[in-house]
Amino acid sequence: MTQTLVPQEHLSPDIRLYERVVGRILELIDGGTLRPGQRLPSVRKLSRQMRISISTVLQAYRILEDAGRIKAKPQSGYYVSVRAYRAPAEPEMSRPTVESTSVRVSDQVMRLLEATRHRDIIPLGAAVAGADALPVRKLNAILRSVIRRQPTLGHSYDVPPGCEALRVAVARRAMEAGCTLTPDDLLTTTGSQEAIGLCLRAVAKPGDTIAIESPTYYGILQTIEGLGMKALEIPTHPRDGVSLDALRLALDETNVKACVFATNFSNPLGSVMPDDSKRRLVEMLAERQIPLIEDDVYGDLHFDEVRPKVCKAFDERGLVLLCSSFSKTLAAGYRVGWCAPGRWQQEVARLKFQSTIASASAPQAAVAEFLETGGYDHHLRSVRRFYHQQVDRMKQAICEFFPEDTKATRPAGGFVLWVQLPGRVDSMALHDRALAEKISIAPGPIFSAKQKYRDFIRLNCGIGWSAEIERAMARLGQMVREMSCRNTPEGS
Amino acid sequence: MTQTLVPQEHLSPDIRLYERVVGRILELIDGGTLRPGQRLPSVRKLSRQMRISISTVLQAYRILEDAGRIKAKPQSGYYVSVRAYRAPAEPEMSRPTVESTSVRVSDQVMRLLEATRHRDIIPLGAAVAGADALPVRKLNAILRSVIRRQPTLGHSYDVPPGCEALRVAVARRAMEAGCTLTPDDLLTTTGSQEAIGLCLRAVAKPGDTIAIESPTYYGILQTIEGLGMKALEIPTHPRDGVSLDALRLALDETNVKACVFATNFSNPLGSVMPDDSKRRLVEMLAERQIPLIEDDVYGDLHFDEVRPKVCKAFDERGLVLLCSSFSKTLAAGYRVGWCAPGRWQQEVARLKFQSTIASASAPQAAVAEFLETGGYDHHLRSVRRFYHQQVDRMKQAICEFFPEDTKATRPAGGFVLWVQLPGRVDSMALHDRALAEKISIAPGPIFSAKQKYRDFIRLNCGIGWSAEIERAMARLGQMVREMSCRNTPEGS
Repeated sequence: MTQTLVPQEHLSPDIRLYERVVGRILELIDGGTLRPGQRLPSVRKLSRQMRISISTVLQAYRILEDAGRIKAKPQSGYYVSVRAYRAPAEPEMSRPTVESTSVRVSDQVMRLLEATRHRDIIPLGAAVAGADALPVRKLNAILRSVIRRQPTLGHSYDVPPGCEALRVAVARRAMEAGCTLTPDDLLTTTGSQEAIGLCLRAVAKPGDTIAIESPTYYGILQTIEGLGMKALEIPTHPRDGVSLDALRLALDETNVKACVFATNFSNPLGSVMPDDSKRRLVEMLAERQIPLIEDDVYGDLHFDEVRPKVCKAFDERGLVLLCSSFSKTLAAGYRVGWCAPGRWQQEVARLKFQSTIASASAPQAAVAEFLETGGYDHHLRSVRRFYHQQVDRMKQAICEFFPEDTKATRPAGGFVLWVQLPGRVDSMALHDRALAEKISIAPGPIFSAKQKYRDFIRLNCGIGWSAEIERAMARLGQMVREMSCRNTPEGS
Repeated sequence: MTQTLVPQEHLSPDIRLYERVVGRILELIDGGTLRPGQRLPSVRKLSRQMRISISTVLQAYRILEDAGRIKAKPQSGYYVSVRAYRAPAEPEMSRPTVESTSVRVSDQVMRLLEATRHRDIIPLGAAVAGADALPVRKLNAILRSVIRRQPTLGHSYDVPPGCEALRVAVARRAMEAGCTLTPDDLLTTTGSQEAIGLCLRAVAKPGDTIAIESPTYYGILQTIEGLGMKALEIPTHPRDGVSLDALRLALDETNVKACVFATNFSNPLGSVMPDDSKRRLVEMLAERQIPLIEDDVYGDLHFDEVRPKVCKAFDERGLVLLCSSFSKTLAAGYRVGWCAPGRWQQEVARLKFQSTIASASAPQAAVAEFLETGGYDHHLRSVRRFYHQQVDRMKQAICEFFPEDTKATRPAGGFVLWVQLPGRVDSMALHDRALAEKISIAPGPIFSAKQKYRDFIRLNCGIGWSAEIERAMARLGQMVREMSCRNTPEGS
């Protein structure tokens, strides 16, 4: 990158000196030390610091000025140009080889988790929302009030199907996603992670093959791994989700027992399958009697005005097992999730009882009350705006701090960004290096059964923007530059 | 039974009339309609009601008086004798055929559960504690205060190993059970049901054989069933727990992958394995490198002064995976449990994350605070006394209302009673009949992989005694009499 700024006519015995100055300044700019609009070191000062002549510094500054990276202001000095914000390019549709694989991502995921336990680590890894985005105070007040009004709630098991008030509230809201559900269609769970695991156990056995998006959320991969099932990664478009053509081919060639897709704002892509494709997906699976476990945990977090439908809305045969939770919209630590398991209702209830007997009673009742009286829709509007802003801010930071050919998704909802690094940077190595500087990121390979996506990272945008995050992004950008293959090798 | 009270010398053409009166009165007494000390209908009244002569009634009453079942008081009438309370005989050691079996108890368990959801049903089925036995108010106050003081607790995932304060408190208390544990040895779970399931998944695979007590808690059977493992029922003594001789034989003959035993106050037997046997059990398993999943959920509920040790206390090789919870001592609906998985710590943490990511944060913190500041020991003393009284009261009711040859365990802790019915009464049929009258009981077969124990029921003694429970027990006793094979068939 440095060399492209030094035109042929400047090549001379002094080339190494120009290069050094130009490179040093670009590093400071791209690394975020020098921000747009800030003044560069004076020519005299830099000349002294770098022990080079004033004319060499001046020539280097002129090269940078020609390239539009800095601007001279008369009587004042040189300043970093304020570049127009330009979204990074998008990654292409994923092209995993379509063959089922045993899964082994747990060790790496557990390392990632370990990082989230330390408060001094910048949390760009796990997809967690900041307390400032969530109605923590209001929800807590409702929980305290529920405990006061129903003191014996916590003393007994809320056995499957679980908290009735919650099932009533969820059934009522399901209309928004195009679904007609009754409280009896629903079952409460300890987050949607439990829901997905129970549904998987209800429809498939160890050794069975499960079709998944590629990339997909590592929690789903871990569940498949833990149950001894196999994963089949289906090519997935960063905006439109799973490729139905690729899926059809895969279904024809492989004995797929079930699908697990996040059709709305998939994690990590943020893709959303158009409603018409959802209808076709449901039909395609119904023809083959293949169940679809639909993870809609980000479904309420659309950036557009209209909430996308769920596949369950098109399900006429009870083959869609819809799973969701309030971990991304209200409070992850309440562990309140649910599922509508279609024709597997009885079986999932049985497995729920075996697995945890019941979920904690009071948090379910509190979430139910928040849904009915707490202004959930009002809250959703504000949290959607918040996440949208954070995602935009993160994209901008990538533009500012990361190499120019870095690519990033354009999610239509949710709060994660899937970033493709240039120059064959190994995201596992980047993860380790970042963690050593107390920055957590999610490396690409944990989103793939085959541990593909070594040049990808997922960034969490759920936390309110801060100088700390800005510095972390600047450091990450710098590391990516340093690790990029196009840089001269260390020591040369 | 009726006939034994009518001596030979009374046999005459009037025999059918005596029989009818004697039988009718005994039914009223044994069925609990006429309680000890209560007055019988006057001779004149009964004569009118039953359309028989006064002398026949008088003769019948004299027969009952001779048998010691009623007493004449001059100038007053006849009264039901007050019998001295005598504990029912104990059932014998179980003798299951020792061969591993696939498990199918879930359907019946789900029927049992369904009953617990209705408030108007007398809850003698599921092992639930009454709100009056538990420190509901104090624990709730702590939970409310925790939420106020740590408002962001509920907003984030408390990922494995889970709440540190709780692990510190549990490690401290482990000394009481003879264990040295550090917080790092522990992992919090959604009740001990989740703990046992995770531990089973860590040490065994589908198809593997798991040795269990016979009878054993149906939740353990369901977990084994759900994981596609096989159960091997080991003969178990109603006071001393699993027979070590029988276990040794089984281990020699069968490829046992793991054991799941409740060594302290097993459910449903209430047996407690002597500490010396625990040591021998741990040694026997260590020689064979077989892990023991130890369910100690009732361990704190000893009726004696001294808390029995756990097997984990004798575990030098990390082969014991100790599981417990606060569902029986503090609050089932908080869903706070834990395990100390020995050498499988990492694996269980991984499975916990896959299964539910984390348990609800605030309830864990509240239980931790109760353990540290809430006077848990003081509470345990009172709840132990309470359960002990309820178990005694239930035994007494069996003595009063059930046929004389009914047998019942003599639990040394916990709050369930395992009852053997005479006369080949089918406990599944009894369950259905009782439920039709809004009384829930747990039928014997759900405590066995082979669905043995058709003549057993388990009774919950966790609820404070009441006239309602008394009536329910009287009705149950009456049903048992009616269903007993030794009664004359209906219509004859």
